[in-house]
Amino acid sequence: MIEDLKSLFEQIVQHIEEDDPQGAARLLAEVTPADAADVLRSFNHEQKVAVLRHLSADTAASILSELDERSLPDLLDLLEDKEIVDMLDELDSDDAADVVAQMEDDQAERVVDLLDQVDHQDALELSELLRYPEDSAGGVMAKEFLSVRRDQTIGSVVAALRKMDEEDLVSHHFAFVVDEQDRLVGQIPLLKLLLADPLARAEEVMTPDPLAVEVMMDQEEVAQLFRKQDLLSLAVVDANHRLIGRITVDDVIDVMTDEAAEDMARFAGSSEEEIGETSVKLISRARLPWLLLGLGGEMISALVISGYQENLRERVILAFFIPLVMATGGNSGVQTSANLIRALAMGRFDRFRARRHILREIGVGILNGFLLGSLVAIILVLTHQDPKVGMVIGLSLACVVLVATTVGTIVPLILHALKIDPALATGPFITTSNDVLGLLVYLGLAHKFLGFI
Amino acid sequence: MIEDLKSLFEQIVQHIEEDDPQGAARLLAEVTPADAADVLRSFNHEQKVAVLRHLSADTAASILSELDERSLPDLLDLLEDKEIVDMLDELDSDDAADVVAQMEDDQAERVVDLLDQVDHQDALELSELLRYPEDSAGGVMAKEFLSVRRDQTIGSVVAALRKMDEEDLVSHHFAFVVDEQDRLVGQIPLLKLLLADPLARAEEVMTPDPLAVEVMMDQEEVAQLFRKQDLLSLAVVDANHRLIGRITVDDVIDVMTDEAAEDMARFAGSSEEEIGETSVKLISRARLPWLLLGLGGEMISALVISGYQENLRERVILAFFIPLVMATGGNSGVQTSANLIRALAMGRFDRFRARRHILREIGVGILNGFLLGSLVAIILVLTHQDPKVGMVIGLSLACVVLVATTVGTIVPLILHALKIDPALATGPFITTSNDVLGLLVYLGLAHKFLGFI
Repeated sequence: MIEDLKSLFEQIVQHIEEDDPQGAARLLAEVTPADAADVLRSFNHEQKVAVLRHLSADTAASILSELDERSLPDLLDLLEDKEIVDMLDELDSDDAADVVAQMEDDQAERVVDLLDQVDHQDALELSELLRYPEDSAGGVMAKEFLSVRRDQTIGSVVAALRKMDEEDLVSHHFAFVVDEQDRLVGQIPLLKLLLADPLARAEEVMTPDPLAVEVMMDQEEVAQLFRKQDLLSLAVVDANHRLIGRITVDDVIDVMTDEAAEDMARFAGSSEEEIGETSVKLISRARLPWLLLGLGGEMISALVISGYQENLRERVILAFFIPLVMATGGNSGVQTSANLIRALAMGRFDRFRARRHILREIGVGILNGFLLGSLVAIILVLTHQDPKVGMVIGLSLACVVLVATTVGTIVPLILHALKIDPALATGPFITTSNDVLGLLVYLGLAHKFLGFI
Repeated sequence: MIEDLKSLFEQIVQHIEEDDPQGAARLLAEVTPADAADVLRSFNHEQKVAVLRHLSADTAASILSELDERSLPDLLDLLEDKEIVDMLDELDSDDAADVVAQMEDDQAERVVDLLDQVDHQDALELSELLRYPEDSAGGVMAKEFLSVRRDQTIGSVVAALRKMDEEDLVSHHFAFVVDEQDRLVGQIPLLKLLLADPLARAEEVMTPDPLAVEVMMDQEEVAQLFRKQDLLSLAVVDANHRLIGRITVDDVIDVMTDEAAEDMARFAGSSEEEIGETSVKLISRARLPWLLLGLGGEMISALVISGYQENLRERVILAFFIPLVMATGGNSGVQTSANLIRALAMGRFDRFRARRHILREIGVGILNGFLLGSLVAIILVLTHQDPKVGMVIGLSLACVVLVATTVGTIVPLILHALKIDPALATGPFITTSNDVLGLLVYLGLAHKFLGFI
């Protein structure tokens, strides 16, 4: 797979370098839109546009909707409004809305107006979808769904289905059943519909009161529902339980992929804005805030150490183990928080068991601190002339591991309770605060025990 | 949702404490198996078994297949073989195989033998599935699929489908078409099948040569196919292209969830074995190897510092900034590797662009190093009597950021090329090696420039 892509990539590079976008387009039309987007990603926007113009509107549209959102605004800026509208017309409403959401406001307005002249219904749906927050159920849902009135006969529904495009029909898993006020009252798997008695009414065949989500529900919660209940498709309703859209599992997979990448980026103290970014300046800008935060924290570390400078001058061996104590504390804190953050993000963490979880982590902190502290103490007592130094360093290490484990458990839980994404603040925050706390514990204990000798 | 679960949890606790597993079971039967498993997780194995015994075999089975794999062996040990077989009989073959894979060898053998007496076909399929590695397509696939001979008429296929259980039928998206040697030659969406001319033969209606995966393909690659191509279901074939199973999107979502949690755990220098683990001893054991690795690395740091102890005694201010230099280098390295690791795991990283990526990261390292180094140099020159000290520390910081960024890019790429999971070795490895390299650069530069004064 990768090897094929590699040779495809090389051929495309050649076509682009020979200024032959048509040749490149011919090759790209043969792979999946996701692969085509992967390959196109490394060219500049002018080159991308040149290739897209040599593809059919629907192929170009599918590739467009697979490109990184961050790079879309500049790319869309290079296309004519008319070209964009032709592409949007080929996309499902949710994908079209994702593309338009990336445009500058005035371009978005022009494009929706232009679409309105081509396809009034599409433009209406698009405008509706653009009103919902991107990370809500409304931001993920599509307006393409099959709805059936409760008193319709199965026969009349099937007759209508037979007129639909087959490819299109297969992408629908359910017909949703609504009452006179368009309120969702049931759903029927399409297969069941085709096998049912043509004379029966929809309400006789349907599964009543199907699971549905409210349009403002957070997309992570939606994804958890899909995961827990093995869903393929889910109705979206407004505050009055009127059916207004549906979400399919492939969109949910995209949500899950993005959320996992975001968690990882945030945890590492970068920004999700970096994902897929290719400009050195923008990557640098995404990372700098966290580095500066860390730098500020470590300035405090410097102050802490300067407070103990006399001790350090006298016993320079204490300085040797600053990195060891800090790094071991940092590693313990990160280990503790990583699984917790993932569990919180997946809705797998049970708030009602927080106390138990904290106690368990403190137990792990005591155990690991004891083991690592003893190890270091033994090594130093055997190799250094003053056994007290080794014992103090070992004891400090044990305390630092315990403190770091506790901080790594409690901080994400507090952030989660405050509705702040724990991944966002945890990585560098925990590392830095553990450094400062660790140094205070280490140098404080050393001062207390070695100072009295 | 969570609030409901909380009150459910409290009620269940009460039932369990009053030694009334039947009451607990009655409540659990009303929620989804995933939620029931979430709630049950916090009780001990005896309590779990008591509750499971009061549930119907199929409800108990679905809850069992949602429980963490790590806790299954001990739990299964408490159940009678006969009880397990009753549950397995209710599960799809892939879920049953996942459960049996967690048993001790002798229990697994007994259970399969017992199942063989109840349902010979199920036992055969189970034994087959158990032969494939857990993380291969074969380890994820189910044996429940619809296969149709190429010369069968649509009418006869539909007649057979009508006899199937409706719930069961809806979970199949395709009928797979095979030739006389059971080799996969096509697939037909079930909806299309129901709408097609009953007199046509399967091969006339089918999509020929559908996408299929070989049974030994890695599950991550399978997940990427689903994601890129928006699949619902995929045929699995053996080396001779014979149809032997199918994978559905809900299994792929579980794979993606597990892989993301694994990546996060490994990146943080813990073990995926920790996920869902509740014993302090086992969590400690999962984390200790990485802490020890870090400890070993930091012993080298201590040696590095001891090599410069005269400089430190003379200019104790250098010791103040050891944490700052180390932490900033560490943060830079982690930022760099996090997105890369996620991109590699998702198959989003294009190997053919590795050179470009490395150059870009070096650019970010130079830019951020320059900015942070200048900032620190300016602060120190303004606040410390000897401006040379500030300039040396700033210069060192810039170099350390560049080195850390480069290491954070190159190490994951090398590991990936060597087919080692980069997440596994990256977190603590990069942090520790950056600490040692950073100290060498920092103290080396300080020695060189301040020593000559």
